[in-house]
Amino acid sequence: MGNKNHPISLRQFQAADGFWKEKMELVRREVIPYQWEILNDRVEGASPSFCMRNFKVAGRLMKEKREKGDAFEEPVYTFRGFEALPEDMEHLEDRFYGFVFQDSDFSKWIEAVAYSLVSHPDPELERTADEAIDVVCAAQMENGYLDTYYIINGMDRSFSNLKDHHELYCLGHLIEGAVAYYQATGKDRLLKAAMKFADYIESRFGQEDGKCKGYPGHEIAEMALVRLYEETGQERYLKLARYFIDERGRQPYYWDCEEEGKQSKAAQSEGERYQYYQAHRPVREQDEAVGHAVRAVYLYSGMADVARITDDAQLKEACRRLWDSIVQEKMYITGAIGGTHIGESFSFPFDLPNDTAYAETCASIGLMFFARRMLEMEPDAAYGDVMELALYNSVLSGMALDGKSFFYVNPLEVLPEACHKDERKFHVKPVRQKWFGCACCPPNLARLISSIPTYAYTENEDTLFMHLHLSGEVKKQLGSQTASFLVESGMPWDGKVTITYTGEKAAAMKLAVRIPGWCEHWQADGLAKFQCSEEKGYYYLEGTWEQGCQVIFTFEMETRFYQADDRVREDIGKVAVMRGPVVYCAEEADNGTSLHLYQILSSSQPAQAGEVTIAGSHYPLLNVSARKKVKAEKAGRLYTKYKKPEYEPAQLYMIPYFAWANRGENEMAVWFTDAGMP
Amino acid sequence: MGNKNHPISLRQFQAADGFWKEKMELVRREVIPYQWEILNDRVEGASPSFCMRNFKVAGRLMKEKREKGDAFEEPVYTFRGFEALPEDMEHLEDRFYGFVFQDSDFSKWIEAVAYSLVSHPDPELERTADEAIDVVCAAQMENGYLDTYYIINGMDRSFSNLKDHHELYCLGHLIEGAVAYYQATGKDRLLKAAMKFADYIESRFGQEDGKCKGYPGHEIAEMALVRLYEETGQERYLKLARYFIDERGRQPYYWDCEEEGKQSKAAQSEGERYQYYQAHRPVREQDEAVGHAVRAVYLYSGMADVARITDDAQLKEACRRLWDSIVQEKMYITGAIGGTHIGESFSFPFDLPNDTAYAETCASIGLMFFARRMLEMEPDAAYGDVMELALYNSVLSGMALDGKSFFYVNPLEVLPEACHKDERKFHVKPVRQKWFGCACCPPNLARLISSIPTYAYTENEDTLFMHLHLSGEVKKQLGSQTASFLVESGMPWDGKVTITYTGEKAAAMKLAVRIPGWCEHWQADGLAKFQCSEEKGYYYLEGTWEQGCQVIFTFEMETRFYQADDRVREDIGKVAVMRGPVVYCAEEADNGTSLHLYQILSSSQPAQAGEVTIAGSHYPLLNVSARKKVKAEKAGRLYTKYKKPEYEPAQLYMIPYFAWANRGENEMAVWFTDAGMP
Repeated sequence: MGNKNHPISLRQFQAADGFWKEKMELVRREVIPYQWEILNDRVEGASPSFCMRNFKVAGRLMKEKREKGDAFEEPVYTFRGFEALPEDMEHLEDRFYGFVFQDSDFSKWIEAVAYSLVSHPDPELERTADEAIDVVCAAQMENGYLDTYYIINGMDRSFSNLKDHHELYCLGHLIEGAVAYYQATGKDRLLKAAMKFADYIESRFGQEDGKCKGYPGHEIAEMALVRLYEETGQERYLKLARYFIDERGRQPYYWDCEEEGKQSKAAQSEGERYQYYQAHRPVREQDEAVGHAVRAVYLYSGMADVARITDDAQLKEACRRLWDSIVQEKMYITGAIGGTHIGESFSFPFDLPNDTAYAETCASIGLMFFARRMLEMEPDAAYGDVMELALYNSVLSGMALDGKSFFYVNPLEVLPEACHKDERKFHVKPVRQKWFGCACCPPNLARLISSIPTYAYTENEDTLFMHLHLSGEVKKQLGSQTASFLVESGMPWDGKVTITYTGEKAAAMKLAVRIPGWCEHWQADGLAKFQCSEEKGYYYLEGTWEQGCQVIFTFEMETRFYQADDRVREDIGKVAVMRGPVVYCAEEADNGTSLHLYQILSSSQPAQAGEVTIAGSHYPLLNVSARKKVKAEKAGRLYTKYKKPEYEPAQLYMIPYFAWANRGENEMAVWFTDAGMP
Repeated sequence: MGNKNHPISLRQFQAADGFWKEKMELVRREVIPYQWEILNDRVEGASPSFCMRNFKVAGRLMKEKREKGDAFEEPVYTFRGFEALPEDMEHLEDRFYGFVFQDSDFSKWIEAVAYSLVSHPDPELERTADEAIDVVCAAQMENGYLDTYYIINGMDRSFSNLKDHHELYCLGHLIEGAVAYYQATGKDRLLKAAMKFADYIESRFGQEDGKCKGYPGHEIAEMALVRLYEETGQERYLKLARYFIDERGRQPYYWDCEEEGKQSKAAQSEGERYQYYQAHRPVREQDEAVGHAVRAVYLYSGMADVARITDDAQLKEACRRLWDSIVQEKMYITGAIGGTHIGESFSFPFDLPNDTAYAETCASIGLMFFARRMLEMEPDAAYGDVMELALYNSVLSGMALDGKSFFYVNPLEVLPEACHKDERKFHVKPVRQKWFGCACCPPNLARLISSIPTYAYTENEDTLFMHLHLSGEVKKQLGSQTASFLVESGMPWDGKVTITYTGEKAAAMKLAVRIPGWCEHWQADGLAKFQCSEEKGYYYLEGTWEQGCQVIFTFEMETRFYQADDRVREDIGKVAVMRGPVVYCAEEADNGTSLHLYQILSSSQPAQAGEVTIAGSHYPLLNVSARKKVKAEKAGRLYTKYKKPEYEPAQLYMIPYFAWANRGENEMAVWFTDAGMP
């Protein structure tokens, strides 16, 4: 199957009513318009983005206030947060404001817009998008360069700090947005701008004599360039992507010689330096997922793309090793990654603290990118399982149920008092925030959710792979003929998936359906006409599909207790609850305070108790047999002689993890001490 | 009894062979000479102190290299650590090196020397000390000012950053050292220098018009000035101490107007600003122990001194509230305080993480200072219990058994891998360090241990209080008559305390012996001749003591399991082991790795198994019934369906906590999950 197994186009899928259509609609109705207001600094109380403003300043579309020849000025924002923000936007000078990567906010938005336009044409939104593209293109320099930070502040400094500034990151996002918009609308203005920028970069970077030997501090250009190559067929983009990947981490380190952003060589030994950036050693030699988690999975995604297309066995093997490092040693049960807020990074193997986790929404989204690319490389349900896990838990947790506020950090345990008073947990917010200055997660969620069908399905010449079981109609082109299937799915709440062939003409092809890793018992009905086989967690149905032909998969969805590897010290003696792909958690709203006093009676079976209404929607409410420690009489002493603890029978009510923190600030926990028998 | 209950003089006690004599000898033989080498930058591999060098530069005792009129230079050290250290001390310029508080290293050393000379006269050591005093005095300015940081860098800046620089802190330590040396040797050269410095400060600070309204960022001057007042009888020192206490935290905040070290007013609201320094509100209104833990207990000690001497009911009440805040909400079972390394501070109530604790040695020493002063205020065994707890656990843990390396941080759980790889735990060291640039803990330990008898005994006119049960002979003056008692004690390993009257003449007086809070059953024999009563944990024996008269206390010392308050989330469902005042811990050296897999069978009784030899000495080795989780087969998956865990019977071997980390780097834990019944 090789490099021909690729995601379907969004045009091939039409969502039917259900879980995902609702989420996609939420993004369309709430998130995309809200983001547009943000990009234009029109949301009161939210940190201004300055994104579109910077493009206007760079493109000289603002009234001229700025004196030429200004000294190079640092941006107002720092990575740590927003200080000294201008109070009155009207009186701002015409200079660059915001983070160095602020341009990418537009690119993520336009990408989400593009996906949304495919499923839901909207002329007004498209007009707004076209106008935005005009503004962005006006900022582009004659030579193709397009990063407003340096255009405004002085091009003499461009490419002087590849490590910490984000020119190549902005290029990557611009490509992603441009390709998506072209695919959605057929309009190539932005695509041409992105190509022109990419061409300029290609003329400046590479192995050839005289070219810069640098590579991006924050990865994404790698996978974006592959996408551009796949869209345009231009080999030079693939070559540039491969160059970035191969050059990364080679010694002597390119960044050691950069003018700006130098770090003391003495600080870390070679081989450890630049771990944060995954540039401590050549990527083919890496075997542990380290450093900033988002950067890591973006890099690995690009590696997987290049490995697949160039059929590079060594690079594939590196991808597999890094995948294993994540999922076998560094991932939370929610599919979250990034055990520490210091550097927003992976911690050491099995160090997965629940209450100080970083567990960034974007990192789980990036893990889905990586997973899908591994699936493109080799269909193995193990990748699909993780993609599904991340999606239904730490990704969805990133957005409030009303689509109006967002989490960066998705902890597995929260005590609000600690978030307010303990500086070690200041990164953990007990309620979602409206918007962030560094706005990566909300637009990343928007582009992910509105393109979810491309994660659900990949295809090659004769096979359609169903990785996620989304309700809707999916089409596949077979030569001049169109096969189509109507999928009715109860996921993630129910494991029945009915697949009906709806193509006008019969089609000879294979359908490969992922058997979820969480499912122990399943059956398929209506198989008589097909040659069936199971391989690496996919159930292949090969034969001729005729209209009305129906296959019904029933994936038994048990509520089940899970345990962590013994080496995860934070979870030792504890259990978590899942049902299908959904992790459950307990909140103070349903259980009162002091969740740490509860212990789960794992010998019992958690029963579904009914429903709970959160933010106007109904969600399952699990009723788990538990016991609760009876509070000892307060003696005014912190430590007292041991007394056998008393417990009272209790019920622990649990809701889907992704729905937490939608009822105000309160305690939450995923893992509970296992009390075994009652 | 009021303000007449004060510590005995060191001359009143002669240690007998046993636990404490050994420790005092260790300090005399190892720590004091080593520190002298350190103060003079003669220890290879240890961070140079520059302490004596700075005095020489300030006193113009170095060969003249420094040009007059140099610009004010920042010290080479920062609070965070040592960078850019000169490689060749020979070629250093004659300027100030080290932390701003480097002078205090000498003061702590001379204080320890003084105590040591009382118990163990040593003419050579005394000569060295006298010579050091000459160097220090040479640095003093005509007006009495004595802080080499400003003398060297420029006096125009003195008192410009009371918040973060340490002139008044250095004054405090100088007084402590000077009084101790005067009491030990009768030599007043250093005492006069300290008084002259104090007089100068007194001329510059106070409520009077024209005086500076500032107060120290790091407290200690308060209690030191009271000590100077008690030694000299000069009221002005008491008045200055009271001024510092009363002015602290008043609004408008003095520090808001300081030239240097300003902090943005916006950063914290009034009432929270300066919490780190306990200067967020007037001390009489404070009711929660907050901020830097060492500073806090130093302040509270000074408050207790002033409250006792001035019989200030309101200030006494504030002391009691702050005491309760510590011991009821913010203290580890080891007597450690400071739940977070961020600001080396108290965390919020009941937030006592074991593995990320700060738990600084100096903070526990400061807690002992505070406890003794509360005992001087009102004899209540609750204070003695905490003093004893801190002493035998987190204080002693600060020093290696060979006296050659030291801990700042005394965690209750250590996984060495985390200390090396997880930046959140970089402050936790798995083995003691030789010396620190910021050398507060080692010399603080030296002065504490060499003066331990003054914590063990306080007295008033007719009563001798025994707070700690030290072996040795203690004397008490009753008019012209000297009463004396020989105390034979098995503490901390055995609860038998034999007290024999050894005075030549009979004496009518009271002896008050602390009944340890950990002791449930005890008896006293030989009471027939006395009127006995028990009050607030002290057993009073009143009567006429005659030679040979003997009272034997037998404090039953059980090995016992303890539990923490339910609100300490980190310890929920866990037990710790103590025997008498000693907390026990388990180390990898005796139990293998993965201590988190052990669970204690709390329904059994831990038995003393025998002894373990560590660093050449014998210590009890407790043998605790436990079970150990059988490691699950590695499936290559982090999370798996719950399976009832299997345990194998196991013994958990535990050693005294203070003896941990003397056998190389290894895992350690104090709290273990309680498995209840086998």
